[in-house]
Amino acid sequence: MDIKELESSYFDDKIYVKNVAVDNVIFGYHDKELRVLLQRPTSFPKWTVTGGYVRKTESIEEAADNIACMRTGLKNLFLKQFRSFGNPSRTKGEREIVKKFFESIGMELPADSWILDYSVSIAFYTLTEFSRVTVQKAPFDEAIDWWPVSQLPPMMFDHALIIAEALKALQHHIYHYPIGYELLPEKFTLPEIHSLYETILDKTLDNRNFTRKLMSTGIVKKLDETRSIGAHRSPYLYKFDKRKYDTALKKGIFLAF
Amino acid sequence: MDIKELESSYFDDKIYVKNVAVDNVIFGYHDKELRVLLQRPTSFPKWTVTGGYVRKTESIEEAADNIACMRTGLKNLFLKQFRSFGNPSRTKGEREIVKKFFESIGMELPADSWILDYSVSIAFYTLTEFSRVTVQKAPFDEAIDWWPVSQLPPMMFDHALIIAEALKALQHHIYHYPIGYELLPEKFTLPEIHSLYETILDKTLDNRNFTRKLMSTGIVKKLDETRSIGAHRSPYLYKFDKRKYDTALKKGIFLAF
Repeated sequence: MDIKELESSYFDDKIYVKNVAVDNVIFGYHDKELRVLLQRPTSFPKWTVTGGYVRKTESIEEAADNIACMRTGLKNLFLKQFRSFGNPSRTKGEREIVKKFFESIGMELPADSWILDYSVSIAFYTLTEFSRVTVQKAPFDEAIDWWPVSQLPPMMFDHALIIAEALKALQHHIYHYPIGYELLPEKFTLPEIHSLYETILDKTLDNRNFTRKLMSTGIVKKLDETRSIGAHRSPYLYKFDKRKYDTALKKGIFLAF
Repeated sequence: MDIKELESSYFDDKIYVKNVAVDNVIFGYHDKELRVLLQRPTSFPKWTVTGGYVRKTESIEEAADNIACMRTGLKNLFLKQFRSFGNPSRTKGEREIVKKFFESIGMELPADSWILDYSVSIAFYTLTEFSRVTVQKAPFDEAIDWWPVSQLPPMMFDHALIIAEALKALQHHIYHYPIGYELLPEKFTLPEIHSLYETILDKTLDNRNFTRKLMSTGIVKKLDETRSIGAHRSPYLYKFDKRKYDTALKKGIFLAF
């Protein structure tokens, strides 16, 4: 999608669903750190979650997936809807910033444009391993970068709340969905998956209990293979059982660490 | 809200948010049975979840709460958003039914009306004890009734899916939120709350384990009071600790039965 395409279509309510935005909180995990991918649109003094509008020809899930793909180059990442946000004041305080943004890119925003009106945000989160990603600026992004979830920059609208709610949802979902497939190397050690869960939940999980519960789900299997990580240290490698993982993704599991 | 008010305003996109509907799956529990409150709008051959549109002056949560109040007369019930639904085909197949509905109530629907367009449904569920409720027909409801969740009538649009997803969400949330306050008498026995959780989860829960876990949350406290339910049977009564319940509602708990 280039600027020209956006220019001609972004106001067009024959193409886009009015009053509805999709925001996708893209979480990146790498080496015990959880980050979130944020954009700063041209002329904005603050940052936003990656987002966009919904074409009438696509589902809200497809719109969210496209947002992730446009910024990361990756498709079909773990994508989960967690909440929608809608109230009369959520974007009101920042209308001047939005107006200035449109001026700065030479687009004229009609005074009664739905862009400035009551806007419902349907929020998703997506997971990826951030060392695998080369982030890409989308049209109108002045900057785009990974930020540690515990140290966010000043955020536009209610986007700090959206990130906080995304993190809370992720921490709940980790008990019910097999999270980790996109966040770990294909073959990983038990300490690696243990660290991942501890990082996301932001708490210490008992080692033996974690392993026992994880293995009881059947979604992870031990390989007849080790990784040498120094003298006398060759931990076994594990991988996801893709068939069981897919079933668990559909039906849900229950992990109580 | 009477029909006249709806008549003049329901098309008016100065009052309502276009392209967005709120559906509220009202679950009723009573004596080991879980039901859902459904409406059949005038001239509709099928049933729908209770729902409506969002005024620009209210939040989506207020809209959902108003829907519950309009049908049950009760305010501030346990209300939880669980998912939004949006794709090009979700209401497409039933447009003729919607058109006929508007004809039957003598309202003219413009051909390009947003009511027939791409519509995102923001879905909530609400919990209540159904023996406490006198259900009320809202404007345009031909029928409204409680249906057992396992035996639904023919449903409009994607509303059977919405109910299935609401139930799945409720079954997840029961591990993370203190559910039961609106569904039990003020003072209840352990078998009563045990049955409630078994009914919602649709599975058997070990008695001792359930009690131990429940009591460890602190949200329920034992009273120095018994209820006589027959010769030699006087189980202790329990009640929710409202302060701890409110905290758990806000911060989440973790129950693993």
